[in-house]
Amino acid sequence: MPFSPGSDSLYRESLVLHEKHRGKLAIRPKVLLKTRHDLSLAYTPGVAEVSREIIRNRDNAYEYTLKANTIAIVTDGSAVLGLGNIGGYAAIPVMEGKAILFKEFAGVDAFPICFESYETDFVDKVRNIAPVFGGINLEDIAAPKCFEVEDALQDIGIPVMHDDQHGTAVVVLAALINACKVTGKKYKDLNIVINGAGAAGYAITRMLKCIGYSPEVCTRVNEIIVCDTQGTIFRGREGLYQNKYKFIISEETNRIALSGTLADALCGADVFIGVSAPGLVTPEMIRSMNRDPIVFAMANPVPEIMPDKAKEAGAAVVGTGRSDYPNQINNVLAFPGIFRGALDARATRITDDMKIAAAHAIAGCVTKPRPDCILPSILDKSVTKRVATAVAKAAVASGCSRSVPSSRHQ
Amino acid sequence: MPFSPGSDSLYRESLVLHEKHRGKLAIRPKVLLKTRHDLSLAYTPGVAEVSREIIRNRDNAYEYTLKANTIAIVTDGSAVLGLGNIGGYAAIPVMEGKAILFKEFAGVDAFPICFESYETDFVDKVRNIAPVFGGINLEDIAAPKCFEVEDALQDIGIPVMHDDQHGTAVVVLAALINACKVTGKKYKDLNIVINGAGAAGYAITRMLKCIGYSPEVCTRVNEIIVCDTQGTIFRGREGLYQNKYKFIISEETNRIALSGTLADALCGADVFIGVSAPGLVTPEMIRSMNRDPIVFAMANPVPEIMPDKAKEAGAAVVGTGRSDYPNQINNVLAFPGIFRGALDARATRITDDMKIAAAHAIAGCVTKPRPDCILPSILDKSVTKRVATAVAKAAVASGCSRSVPSSRHQ
Repeated sequence: MPFSPGSDSLYRESLVLHEKHRGKLAIRPKVLLKTRHDLSLAYTPGVAEVSREIIRNRDNAYEYTLKANTIAIVTDGSAVLGLGNIGGYAAIPVMEGKAILFKEFAGVDAFPICFESYETDFVDKVRNIAPVFGGINLEDIAAPKCFEVEDALQDIGIPVMHDDQHGTAVVVLAALINACKVTGKKYKDLNIVINGAGAAGYAITRMLKCIGYSPEVCTRVNEIIVCDTQGTIFRGREGLYQNKYKFIISEETNRIALSGTLADALCGADVFIGVSAPGLVTPEMIRSMNRDPIVFAMANPVPEIMPDKAKEAGAAVVGTGRSDYPNQINNVLAFPGIFRGALDARATRITDDMKIAAAHAIAGCVTKPRPDCILPSILDKSVTKRVATAVAKAAVASGCSRSVPSSRHQ
Repeated sequence: MPFSPGSDSLYRESLVLHEKHRGKLAIRPKVLLKTRHDLSLAYTPGVAEVSREIIRNRDNAYEYTLKANTIAIVTDGSAVLGLGNIGGYAAIPVMEGKAILFKEFAGVDAFPICFESYETDFVDKVRNIAPVFGGINLEDIAAPKCFEVEDALQDIGIPVMHDDQHGTAVVVLAALINACKVTGKKYKDLNIVINGAGAAGYAITRMLKCIGYSPEVCTRVNEIIVCDTQGTIFRGREGLYQNKYKFIISEETNRIALSGTLADALCGADVFIGVSAPGLVTPEMIRSMNRDPIVFAMANPVPEIMPDKAKEAGAAVVGTGRSDYPNQINNVLAFPGIFRGALDARATRITDDMKIAAAHAIAGCVTKPRPDCILPSILDKSVTKRVATAVAKAAVASGCSRSVPSSRHQ
């Protein structure tokens, strides 16, 4: 998600910065290599003993190697930013950027793995590079492949999370928690419309369905209706069998099987969540919503409706992906802390409970939510620590932690 | 190759060091990420322009990303140190050690990629992770798979080198060049016996066959005989068809098709090169060699014959893999400079000429070779610079360089 809209001078400055440093990421040794003795400890013959400890117990890789603090950022470049399917090479600078965000915000060592092209055995390839890593952040992979890949990798023994899905969904849930506090709406009464059924839309749908399972919330929203370019997704809509994930949406949302346009869906709704395209929402649509509507218009860089227009039309709370308006909904609030917590807990997976815990931790960073302040600043690094602590705790509670959490790498 | 023999206290110290730091390698951002503006340059939206430059021309990845200075150290852990086939997990600390050697000696950012297990589509997997990397160092892969994998990857557009083969062969050639100066032997007259026909033995054989193609040397050695556990490898030996590489050895060496033991082969030979097992060479065998024999006994940690025994038996020059004797033949003299030079030249491959240039550069680091000083110290980092310069120059001359060499990353 962009931090702010681009401009030609910004683009030029970015090129100069990248060329000056030849990328943004370097490898740094953590031990000295000045004497023969240093070499004999860090390399042969001393290192053989470390290998023997790992032969004895594979989990010892967490004690003695970079696995303890290192994740891969894996992409095939099939759905990058606003650029589309640009392939593994052109995705490199984006993945490097993500990697240094992980380091800067969470102390996580992240290394980009960019597959050359859209491959059918993607899953097999990720599985095979897993030994060195304590986690896998899937990034910028097109739907529905991203769902299939993520599902298939849940058994490899380390956390695998597609950030475009769950990072976004976690921050949306956090924003929604605080928007409800601001508007006095109750979760159980919420009627939510999600526009966009790609990676983010599907994950947001699943996440909001999950709210009911959180011990801290204990309710489920009243209704979710998801729209795509054809309008509402409803049980029995023609062609749904071609996309397993839209089929699941049709089964699990829209109980009244409303068939219609986005405008039809928004009539009387409490919440609009847009992960779609610029300008799709009109002031009239906002006016047709329930009292004090909550509007998260996250299309980037131009939202589904501009914040001032939405407010004029009666929106009580407006969030976008942009840094130049209040309530920036950006997954940098989530992913560093989620992986920090997962690594600290040596989690084997990232469970729904861990994501929900992350959302509540983010929401909890705002002491007194106000219409123009439902989320902490993306530059507030204390958010990562709170998220990490909550996620590690949830990992232990979920039974998917290898050890007592510690935060020695922060 | 070990730097020195191990001991229990060294092993304990190594474990403590590895546990303290949880591995030896970290990721470091090269750009600031403090303000929204920093984020907009290093990540979105600024980074999109960098992606567009790479879409325009894939080689621009060298200008703007970590590809310019980053290699992968790839293993399946099938032939690690003296430990054998230990798999990808137990190989991690060894690969991390190698990675920090690359950084320390050559400023190369190297990241370990450890495949979980011995896989048939290894080649396909390496090919697919190539976009991020400017080179691939294959490491600790069992023969004959290592030959097949390396051969199959020569067309991927970045240098791919199996260091256990060529790093070792380059340093052996360097040692031999100076040993000849010390003993007054001429290359063209040399009769060489190589004991061991695995990764290193095969590469040394090919490298010494190459000498004749170097414009600086312009001769070929007189004869090479390679031995394995069954004795000499000769044309027509039974079972050679089972191993393509031993078959090639039988075709290209041992012109008289000598059938016999290592002792038979050594009679009258000028040079013994051991990449085999402890204690296989006796003083009698040394005494049976030509005048002023050259003995490189590189089995580790215990050589084929100990240096003092070899000298007593008349060896003029003795080298081993050990740091506690003179003339340590260790590939750390070669691999950092070879990849530094290849990256500086943006080489597409590592040619024989580049390896030969590296060997001459290493040999040239010793101004006046003496029996106890035919190689520079492994701690002398000026070696890397000389090797890198020579390799980059050879890459340009070979026509496999994308650009004029520069050393901005050193």
